[in-house]
Amino acid sequence: RKLDKSVQDHLYFDSYSDVSIHEEMIADSVRTNAYRLGIARNAAAVRGKAVLDVGAGTGVLSVFCAQAGARKVYAVEASSIAEQAAEIVRLNAVDDRVEVIRGRLEDVELPERVDVIVSEWMGYALLHESMLNSVLVARDRWLRPGGLMLPSRAELFVAPISDLVLEERLRFWGSVKERYGVDMSCMADFARRCIMNRDIAVVPVAVEDVLSHPARFAELDLGAVTEEDLQNVRGTFCCDCFGSASVSGLCVWFAVSFPGEDKPLVLSTSPFKPETHWKQAVLYLDEPVDVVQDTRVEGEIRMFPSEESSRHICIHVDCTIGGLKMKSKTYSIPDGYSCETHVS
Amino acid sequence: RKLDKSVQDHLYFDSYSDVSIHEEMIADSVRTNAYRLGIARNAAAVRGKAVLDVGAGTGVLSVFCAQAGARKVYAVEASSIAEQAAEIVRLNAVDDRVEVIRGRLEDVELPERVDVIVSEWMGYALLHESMLNSVLVARDRWLRPGGLMLPSRAELFVAPISDLVLEERLRFWGSVKERYGVDMSCMADFARRCIMNRDIAVVPVAVEDVLSHPARFAELDLGAVTEEDLQNVRGTFCCDCFGSASVSGLCVWFAVSFPGEDKPLVLSTSPFKPETHWKQAVLYLDEPVDVVQDTRVEGEIRMFPSEESSRHICIHVDCTIGGLKMKSKTYSIPDGYSCETHVS
Repeated sequence: RKLDKSVQDHLYFDSYSDVSIHEEMIADSVRTNAYRLGIARNAAAVRGKAVLDVGAGTGVLSVFCAQAGARKVYAVEASSIAEQAAEIVRLNAVDDRVEVIRGRLEDVELPERVDVIVSEWMGYALLHESMLNSVLVARDRWLRPGGLMLPSRAELFVAPISDLVLEERLRFWGSVKERYGVDMSCMADFARRCIMNRDIAVVPVAVEDVLSHPARFAELDLGAVTEEDLQNVRGTFCCDCFGSASVSGLCVWFAVSFPGEDKPLVLSTSPFKPETHWKQAVLYLDEPVDVVQDTRVEGEIRMFPSEESSRHICIHVDCTIGGLKMKSKTYSIPDGYSCETHVS
Repeated sequence: RKLDKSVQDHLYFDSYSDVSIHEEMIADSVRTNAYRLGIARNAAAVRGKAVLDVGAGTGVLSVFCAQAGARKVYAVEASSIAEQAAEIVRLNAVDDRVEVIRGRLEDVELPERVDVIVSEWMGYALLHESMLNSVLVARDRWLRPGGLMLPSRAELFVAPISDLVLEERLRFWGSVKERYGVDMSCMADFARRCIMNRDIAVVPVAVEDVLSHPARFAELDLGAVTEEDLQNVRGTFCCDCFGSASVSGLCVWFAVSFPGEDKPLVLSTSPFKPETHWKQAVLYLDEPVDVVQDTRVEGEIRMFPSEESSRHICIHVDCTIGGLKMKSKTYSIPDGYSCETHVS
């Protein structure tokens, strides 16, 4: 079913009013510290300037910007969490500089152009339920030419993985006869078909399950990317496997970076780095495929908004493993996924 | 929004086609062993007889009945998992006695009346998304007078609890200033309001959080209870607290029992017993209330189907603590809850 835009927006903003998602985001120290340091490193560009925080939530990034010396921060937040943001701004005695504005970014009128836009807009697999479109509207409408985007760049990565937890789950069905005297071993095939489907699984991938070095397949310059570009984010990848293993599927993740004097500060959601609340996005093959050292896994990934809801992302994968063409598959994140991850 | 019955049914049966819920149920050894032993203990009543399994799922209870000597088992299952049940029946070489019938119980025609009805119909808080209505239709239509219901009785219990995990979650907001230099302590009040609301939380309650002996507030004789009775399952309770504590809310759980020669075999989902996939249902007060030893917590609980969806349960609580009247509250289980618990 196709929801109209206002219902989609309502559902989207509703889920952000509940406390659990904010607790999860603030408690994600990889995320929160990256923004804290990313803003502090750019203090020279923030000091005495006007900043726009898109989707401010509890307002923590706005307070970071005020602490870095911003003259004025416009904290725009559509959901009712804006009330808490206003309270937090007062509690931290920056209410003379931070103005919380409740409303959709698209509807907001600011008294001036800004020098900096800060936003934590990233969703699962970077673009699922992401606010990036609103950030681009904000940029085109309110950022002074030559202004600063924080973060300024996003990159997408992929690597083949095995899934040992899945294999363990499938072995369960072989153990039922011993447990209860009923042979249910035939369920393993059914279970594999149910799990290795077209749903994107948002799960933490163990580093030992990653079968090659990561391949970067796309990058977005947040100062230049357009809404039209986001209709079709695509790229190719080529990975050579470390050794003998069974490939369950591909793992997709992202990194965003903040400009820095020497080198950028990177907020990475890689399985090789400490876990974040974004975890990783797993795209299963229909069946596992055996590989050996240096087997090449290559192909093309294309990400685009779902036809049913523009906030939902679809990921299309064409891929060969050791020269063998896999079935093309288009994946999406199941409905209600954002709720699940917010329940304590 | 009010969904029409056929859409409700569709959603309900859909969620049971996925493998994860069946994996969770079969892996729940408290549940599966209770049925295994409950059926085995009643082998004298099953041997040579006809059995109807309502909502057979993977067919495991039907195979138990065949193993206990049933002449014929009708395994009725509306969802597509019926195909797997048929395969499991063949694999266990009981396909001469177990007939898997795909369809809604209400639509099924059997060639005979049965001597035994077996069903695992219980949902969260006993009645949430429960199949009990279908089981009663089956009983009234297909069970021979004097026939056996497995299980034959259900009981509902309540006790006041504290929630130490919740208190720990709320303390998080006081720690944010130390972590990131932003004072977010004012979020604790908001978080409490978000969490201590009208949603029933389906969570495992730790035994040390239970503040009194359980009180049984309702019981259902499954041989006699009617669909009309289920419109209003109510009872009173009276609990005396063990000692000084802070009451966060009430915890509700159930037990069902199978007849036995000496005493019934009980499948209990009590927080004092090993955990099951049903966990417990927690109903929060608006705010915690302090109690001391022997403070009385008493009142009335009423359970009834939601107006929006007859498969969803509402729980209304009137309660006093130490003589102080609490606000009356009507609770329900949030939409999509059943999915959440099924995702691996």
